[in-house]
Amino acid sequence: MPDGGTRVAVLGATGFGGALCARIVHRHPSLELTVATARAEAGRRHDELYPRYAVPQVLEEFDADAVAERAGAALVAYPHKTAALAVRQLRERGLKVVDLSADFRLDQAAYERWYQAHEAPELLGEAVYGLPEAHRDEIAAASLVAGPGCNSTAALLATLPLRGRIEDAVFDIKAGVSGAGREATEETHYSSAAENVNAYKVEGHRHSAEIEQELGPGRFSFLTHLVPLDQGILASCYLTVPGLTKDEAVALYRDAYAAEPFIDVVDSAPHTRHVQDTNRCRVHVTVVGDRTIAFAAIDNLWKGAAGQAVQDLNLMLGLPETEGLE
Amino acid sequence: MPDGGTRVAVLGATGFGGALCARIVHRHPSLELTVATARAEAGRRHDELYPRYAVPQVLEEFDADAVAERAGAALVAYPHKTAALAVRQLRERGLKVVDLSADFRLDQAAYERWYQAHEAPELLGEAVYGLPEAHRDEIAAASLVAGPGCNSTAALLATLPLRGRIEDAVFDIKAGVSGAGREATEETHYSSAAENVNAYKVEGHRHSAEIEQELGPGRFSFLTHLVPLDQGILASCYLTVPGLTKDEAVALYRDAYAAEPFIDVVDSAPHTRHVQDTNRCRVHVTVVGDRTIAFAAIDNLWKGAAGQAVQDLNLMLGLPETEGLE
Amino acid sequence: MPDGGTRVAVLGATGFGGALCARIVHRHPSLELTVATARAEAGRRHDELYPRYAVPQVLEEFDADAVAERAGAALVAYPHKTAALAVRQLRERGLKVVDLSADFRLDQAAYERWYQAHEAPELLGEAVYGLPEAHRDEIAAASLVAGPGCNSTAALLATLPLRGRIEDAVFDIKAGVSGAGREATEETHYSSAAENVNAYKVEGHRHSAEIEQELGPGRFSFLTHLVPLDQGILASCYLTVPGLTKDEAVALYRDAYAAEPFIDVVDSAPHTRHVQDTNRCRVHVTVVGDRTIAFAAIDNLWKGAAGQAVQDLNLMLGLPETEGLE
Amino acid sequence: MPDGGTRVAVLGATGFGGALCARIVHRHPSLELTVATARAEAGRRHDELYPRYAVPQVLEEFDADAVAERAGAALVAYPHKTAALAVRQLRERGLKVVDLSADFRLDQAAYERWYQAHEAPELLGEAVYGLPEAHRDEIAAASLVAGPGCNSTAALLATLPLRGRIEDAVFDIKAGVSGAGREATEETHYSSAAENVNAYKVEGHRHSAEIEQELGPGRFSFLTHLVPLDQGILASCYLTVPGLTKDEAVALYRDAYAAEPFIDVVDSAPHTRHVQDTNRCRVHVTVVGDRTIAFAAIDNLWKGAAGQAVQDLNLMLGLPETEGLE
Repeated sequence: MPDGGTRVAVLGATGFGGALCARIVHRHPSLELTVATARAEAGRRHDELYPRYAVPQVLEEFDADAVAERAGAALVAYPHKTAALAVRQLRERGLKVVDLSADFRLDQAAYERWYQAHEAPELLGEAVYGLPEAHRDEIAAASLVAGPGCNSTAALLATLPLRGRIEDAVFDIKAGVSGAGREATEETHYSSAAENVNAYKVEGHRHSAEIEQELGPGRFSFLTHLVPLDQGILASCYLTVPGLTKDEAVALYRDAYAAEPFIDVVDSAPHTRHVQDTNRCRVHVTVVGDRTIAFAAIDNLWKGAAGQAVQDLNLMLGLPETEGLE
Repeated sequence: MPDGGTRVAVLGATGFGGALCARIVHRHPSLELTVATARAEAGRRHDELYPRYAVPQVLEEFDADAVAERAGAALVAYPHKTAALAVRQLRERGLKVVDLSADFRLDQAAYERWYQAHEAPELLGEAVYGLPEAHRDEIAAASLVAGPGCNSTAALLATLPLRGRIEDAVFDIKAGVSGAGREATEETHYSSAAENVNAYKVEGHRHSAEIEQELGPGRFSFLTHLVPLDQGILASCYLTVPGLTKDEAVALYRDAYAAEPFIDVVDSAPHTRHVQDTNRCRVHVTVVGDRTIAFAAIDNLWKGAAGQAVQDLNLMLGLPETEGLE
Repeated sequence: MPDGGTRVAVLGATGFGGALCARIVHRHPSLELTVATARAEAGRRHDELYPRYAVPQVLEEFDADAVAERAGAALVAYPHKTAALAVRQLRERGLKVVDLSADFRLDQAAYERWYQAHEAPELLGEAVYGLPEAHRDEIAAASLVAGPGCNSTAALLATLPLRGRIEDAVFDIKAGVSGAGREATEETHYSSAAENVNAYKVEGHRHSAEIEQELGPGRFSFLTHLVPLDQGILASCYLTVPGLTKDEAVALYRDAYAAEPFIDVVDSAPHTRHVQDTNRCRVHVTVVGDRTIAFAAIDNLWKGAAGQAVQDLNLMLGLPETEGLE
Repeated sequence: MPDGGTRVAVLGATGFGGALCARIVHRHPSLELTVATARAEAGRRHDELYPRYAVPQVLEEFDADAVAERAGAALVAYPHKTAALAVRQLRERGLKVVDLSADFRLDQAAYERWYQAHEAPELLGEAVYGLPEAHRDEIAAASLVAGPGCNSTAALLATLPLRGRIEDAVFDIKAGVSGAGREATEETHYSSAAENVNAYKVEGHRHSAEIEQELGPGRFSFLTHLVPLDQGILASCYLTVPGLTKDEAVALYRDAYAAEPFIDVVDSAPHTRHVQDTNRCRVHVTVVGDRTIAFAAIDNLWKGAAGQAVQDLNLMLGLPETEGLE
């Protein structure tokens, strides 16, 4: 890896998350986008599919050796299971990897409970959960980072300052349609999604495993709703934190996030529109009666996926954490 | 009231709720719309303002005597405080009234805590809370009914079968923009409301008083979010009900709502789109871990306001409850 | 057909147009919905798929004999080509048919130019173009009616009063996403369709053949745009009509449509929102300089498809034209 | 003006156009935002009102002397008439100005026909119409530039390569709601604008004067429609250009725009989504029958207002034309 990793491959560059990875890397002052892969659309240029992103890269099929020749680091935006297999090939060739799938977020037991048999369990030991606000130093030292889920990112950023003190939590997530992915389905059809709100996967959402892993044990309920917007997540968190007062809560949050480059602790309930197309997260906390209520608003494709992946990569490569993200 | 109340006045017929009241009454097989009031728009025809509703009634300024001459019942869709004063005038003239404002929903103490000094406290004793699923017989016997708030309607319909057993509840409400009213404000501007989700009135929403009144004491949190759709409310309710199993919960709900003409207990999380422009409410309940999760989806202008008001009026007048609402 | 056709089958009752046909027939005072067909979803109830329409009919696979036993008339909402084959089977069994596809709208030459070889050309002679405002008497006498395309309906209703006088016309159509059908595609994905406007089929839209057939020869351009709403079409028509003044144009339109039950000639540019979920069409005409500008707003699923099909069927069966449509 | 104009004031920095001006200047590598004015919101920080833009500037009331002390150039985003008065004060103090209002776009006669008496007619002689694709050299030499209207920008960019050859043109514009400005009105209310399309100002739109001025005489019709999206304009232009073939048209456009940094001539009808939040314009031209059809898609706040104003300013200051705009 003679270039220190600054030549970057994006695998799966035609999904919503991967496409934005390509765009951010392409414009990044210290990184160079050298490979962008796709299956069905190999041979076409990225900017034919995503004109707004203006990335002239020609898409190609994935070949690990070819990637390793031209890149020192990779952002992998494949579906889970496929991701693990690609990550193994890249790690075997020495690339630093941020994987945006769920494959390396959980320990093996939790993963196999929510997903399926793990395809590359030998790599789980080296993988770091890529939430910089919780694991900055580990990320900086890692060669494999697992990008957190978008809903989990919002839920965790809304509650991290209270880690260890939350007895009971309800995470009510409102997520835009791009979070459901690029596949055209009945649910993502405009005539279903517009003028509609609904919860999904009520009986148990995979992201709850990430919450428990990061926040520690507690009585947690996690539920996601589809709302009719394109990019954006609002996490509304209803917490039981014995003895916490509003002043103390606000002070804790301001303190915890004072040095965070992408977190704004704000004085009123945040709007998803205010973070759209940015890597920022707006957090608000208050205590009403004996319930602590905390919010986080992010753009699911930025701080919830591609932006955060590049933030991780910046840390892994020793670059300024915010580079290419402002 | 020689006509038994079937000649109906709608006061405030140009706001979103009042306009729909006028439309429903106009098409109602047993009711006749004889008066529709407005201030700024008096003299214009209702269907100039709301062509889709096709109500040819000429709008006029409110005059209690004129209304009493031509109507035996009234739906009052004025802002609170103004509503109480109009209701008093109509009650003095013997009209049956459904008031859509908050003025007669609460007892005087609760009202004055959340709103202001009450303008017609002598009427509070006779007012009945107009949620048919909870107070059908009282409504049928009443001369003054207080239409429930739209958010409260959704929250209560999602939880009524568990009344008295809920120790702890989080009511997370997602409400469409029409619920914010017809006034053009920064919040209702398309360029604010589209591509946005945000909570509002986090420190305490007036509707929570209705919840406590109807469900009895408990540790309740109630929070409303603005979502980018026009008509629709989804209430997601996270409940602690000791000992409740999923099977028992489903049985309780099916039993409680078996005879309800407008409530559908459904097998999966409801979509607001599925009740749009109807007076129906779709309810779903499940138990995940030790948390009971219940949902209700309604159209805020129908079951949350105008439709429910006519449902109340049908009961008050001895008409079939569903008449004019299907 | 001992019932005079009032027992009605809807073929293809799970597409957007067919689903609404089923709903309108189900609620129609003089019609009875006896059959609703579907392929993939046979065996399910219609109201599982379209809860808002509240049609409890069980969907079944198409069998011409079974349909003929239980119905005297049919609304066919199949894709073209498939439609022609089904229509032939139904006509052989004596049913009156309104076909919503393009299969019977054009003469054979025009059809085969824009579509493909016709599957049932022997029926073209008896088919009537189902725009009541142009062909009311023929429709009333017909056994096979071809429902006009939704875009053509809007374009024609905006211009019919000037038929024969239009030298040059640009029809610029703005159409909601439901017009693209229920199939989930890249174009109907919320994350493509929201915050977007684009023209499609610029090189020649099939609907232009209907325009020419109905308006007679002229220099006509017809172009459709996808706009981010669910139901609605606005046709903006820029016409060269030598010698026409504004007063004369308005008088012509008011006169032509004076007796039309579903057409409103209005004094300003119409809004699609004002006809949403109705069978109405709002038309406006003016002359600016030497250009006549005419608009029509309809709901593509109602006056543009299912509503108009039932309007046709009412005529064919000797029922009041507006029955079931208000 | 010792700094050569690189210290920049934005007047009217709280409207949609002005707010984006502030953001672009703030991030511009060669410019410094030194003043941002507002009336009602003076004293507040820009990023309180527009968090997404992240401009920390404190808003202040307009004072010409104070502006002249701290800035060598200004972007003026005031309503017309107010703009002219402010521009005069700034020009008297030697600042270079780009004015985004209509005040300096037209000659006095045309202006006073469409607007009102001009407040600073003595400046009309020095003002240059700020469409770089038409007037690049004049803009570079100017001290006062009039930013084109957003609808006109789209219409002109779609047709400029045919200037002088267009006999007849229909410009059908579809414009997002942000183009109607930040004021909350009945038309910008979400519950009016969503699920709606309508034309406005049918009898004559002020922007048509700009078209005639730039394209020369012809039989032109210009009409704008409000469509339910936030940022974006699509101009669909139906042109009569005698003798023009499709190949020639495409060649003409490719040639005319080959060196333009912000114009993409594309092979199919452009989507507004593809230029959202960019200063780019996507243009497509074809010939169908004897009609030339041309499209341009822009973001009304970027290439239609703030982005183009900075593009003008870059030219006026001798900076790279695209600086700060990519």
